[in-house]
Amino acid sequence: MNIYDIAELAGVSIATVSRVVNDSPKVSEKTKMKVRAVMEANHYTPNVFARGLGLNSMKTVGIVCPDVSDDYMAGSVAYLEKRLRSYGYDCILYCSGYEYEDKAAAVHLILQKRIDALFLVGSHYAGNGSGEDVDYVREAADTILVFLINGYVRCPGVYCVLSDNYQAVYDAVSALTETGKKGILFLYDSNSYSTMEKMRGYEDALKDNGISVTEDRKIFVQNKILTVRDMLLEKKDLEFDAVAATDDGLAIGALKYARKKKLSVPGDISIIGFNNSELSICCEPELSSIDSRSETLCKTAVDSMMALLKGRPVRHKKVVPCRLVKRRTTNF
Amino acid sequence: MNIYDIAELAGVSIATVSRVVNDSPKVSEKTKMKVRAVMEANHYTPNVFARGLGLNSMKTVGIVCPDVSDDYMAGSVAYLEKRLRSYGYDCILYCSGYEYEDKAAAVHLILQKRIDALFLVGSHYAGNGSGEDVDYVREAADTILVFLINGYVRCPGVYCVLSDNYQAVYDAVSALTETGKKGILFLYDSNSYSTMEKMRGYEDALKDNGISVTEDRKIFVQNKILTVRDMLLEKKDLEFDAVAATDDGLAIGALKYARKKKLSVPGDISIIGFNNSELSICCEPELSSIDSRSETLCKTAVDSMMALLKGRPVRHKKVVPCRLVKRRTTNF
Repeated sequence: MNIYDIAELAGVSIATVSRVVNDSPKVSEKTKMKVRAVMEANHYTPNVFARGLGLNSMKTVGIVCPDVSDDYMAGSVAYLEKRLRSYGYDCILYCSGYEYEDKAAAVHLILQKRIDALFLVGSHYAGNGSGEDVDYVREAADTILVFLINGYVRCPGVYCVLSDNYQAVYDAVSALTETGKKGILFLYDSNSYSTMEKMRGYEDALKDNGISVTEDRKIFVQNKILTVRDMLLEKKDLEFDAVAATDDGLAIGALKYARKKKLSVPGDISIIGFNNSELSICCEPELSSIDSRSETLCKTAVDSMMALLKGRPVRHKKVVPCRLVKRRTTNF
Repeated sequence: MNIYDIAELAGVSIATVSRVVNDSPKVSEKTKMKVRAVMEANHYTPNVFARGLGLNSMKTVGIVCPDVSDDYMAGSVAYLEKRLRSYGYDCILYCSGYEYEDKAAAVHLILQKRIDALFLVGSHYAGNGSGEDVDYVREAADTILVFLINGYVRCPGVYCVLSDNYQAVYDAVSALTETGKKGILFLYDSNSYSTMEKMRGYEDALKDNGISVTEDRKIFVQNKILTVRDMLLEKKDLEFDAVAATDDGLAIGALKYARKKKLSVPGDISIIGFNNSELSICCEPELSSIDSRSETLCKTAVDSMMALLKGRPVRHKKVVPCRLVKRRTTNF
């Protein structure tokens, strides 16, 4: 039983429930009595979220990400902070690391602060393909508004804003097949929600273009540029003429491999990265990369929070299309 | 009159003053009377810092940086957060932007929170060569412990941990002259304290190696890789055979210039970057770069805070030597 249920049962908005909890003069006595009756009948204790909405708000939110020194996350935290600041909110930052226990502990700890909402940055908080659970996210949503950037967890109280990673990779891999590429590698460095979506896009694009998916062409490798290069150099029996990577660093590793093997890019090997980070401009030739539009994701999430606090309805899943930035490592 | 003055006049540590303010049972009545007498005689009102040290601490610090999406700053914030978290401290993050008014406003705003200390990340908070003042940093230090990462402001209550940027650039430019380079450009993108230190190192190294410093070889250019390349392409009359840049992005811009002009690197042009960021591995050839050791800076600053809170003496200026990482854009 949480604030959403109370609102629904009482036939009012969550903002109204919050105002009742905070005994706001803006709510009529009649409504107050009705809401309180529902709360009592359901043994409902006002929680952090309800308090956060009201007069007791500290105007502070929690931002949790695995590692803010990561390019993508740093950008997202910067966008979130700026947007939240523009609404007068402070941000407590918590870098949780990537391990399940550490992520759960971070969320648990930050919920003990007086925060009005929780932003989880990066799809590492949306479980992974190996069946990691997301109970800690669901539990957080029982007591506070939760926003998930670039991941999806189906749960009342969890609002997800994500890039259309599936479609972006589907389109990019399809485009590679249209330039005649058949041996397309998929390089990935995590099992996060968004990575699994990208992999689905890769697989479906191959199938839909009449190319069979083989396990040896899907390669998990930790995101260090020179590690990727050396790993590819060692796979002497693997034939490929293109690479789709879930991250620009991985793609540049493939580019370093091509250079070492004196292969032409994009002729012998075409390469597509992801995130359109500054790295994509540094390498030679410059890297075609998918822009995940994280600024739009972050703005959308913060604006969703503001809408919810004003009692307006907000969709639980908002998907933002990506954008392919064509440079010199592809033939299209 | 601040807590340092009170501590000195009363002949006790600042931690003791703090305990008196918080009426801690750990301090004898005799000492309490002595400290209170000094406080009254000097019309001293206990401030945020004094409260922060005591029982009322929220175990929260403020971290202010111009822009956390910047590589260097993101790394520093990540290191600070991790170290502070290990001591049980929460971090409120504030991205201030680069303008003087915005920086001062950010510091002013964050001081109104109940924080125990303030960390300013990046030498943009230490004034610049154009005489920008740092009154807002001094004022902050009147009410709270201030730590400055990679900058220096001489002031009681401001504790500075900085890279030896002067020596690093001095050594790198000297090494360039020893490989026969005479026309060495200095590319920079700000007037921050650390940039001015780097410029001093550049100038002194030239002078000490019998090369005159010319203004046209010191080039201010905003940190966009392709902007740097195009700017150099336009300067047709400028002769140079080496580049020392205050940032890896600037250095890679010079590398892009060399490629466009079909100049060999490091033969025709040697190039040195700064920060040893991931960018330095992406480019071709890979970039020699100066590692500013920001992890050490951040750890040192946090450990200084912990020492001060325990009443131990801490030096106001700690300088950490840099480390040149030699790759393929230099001949040494």
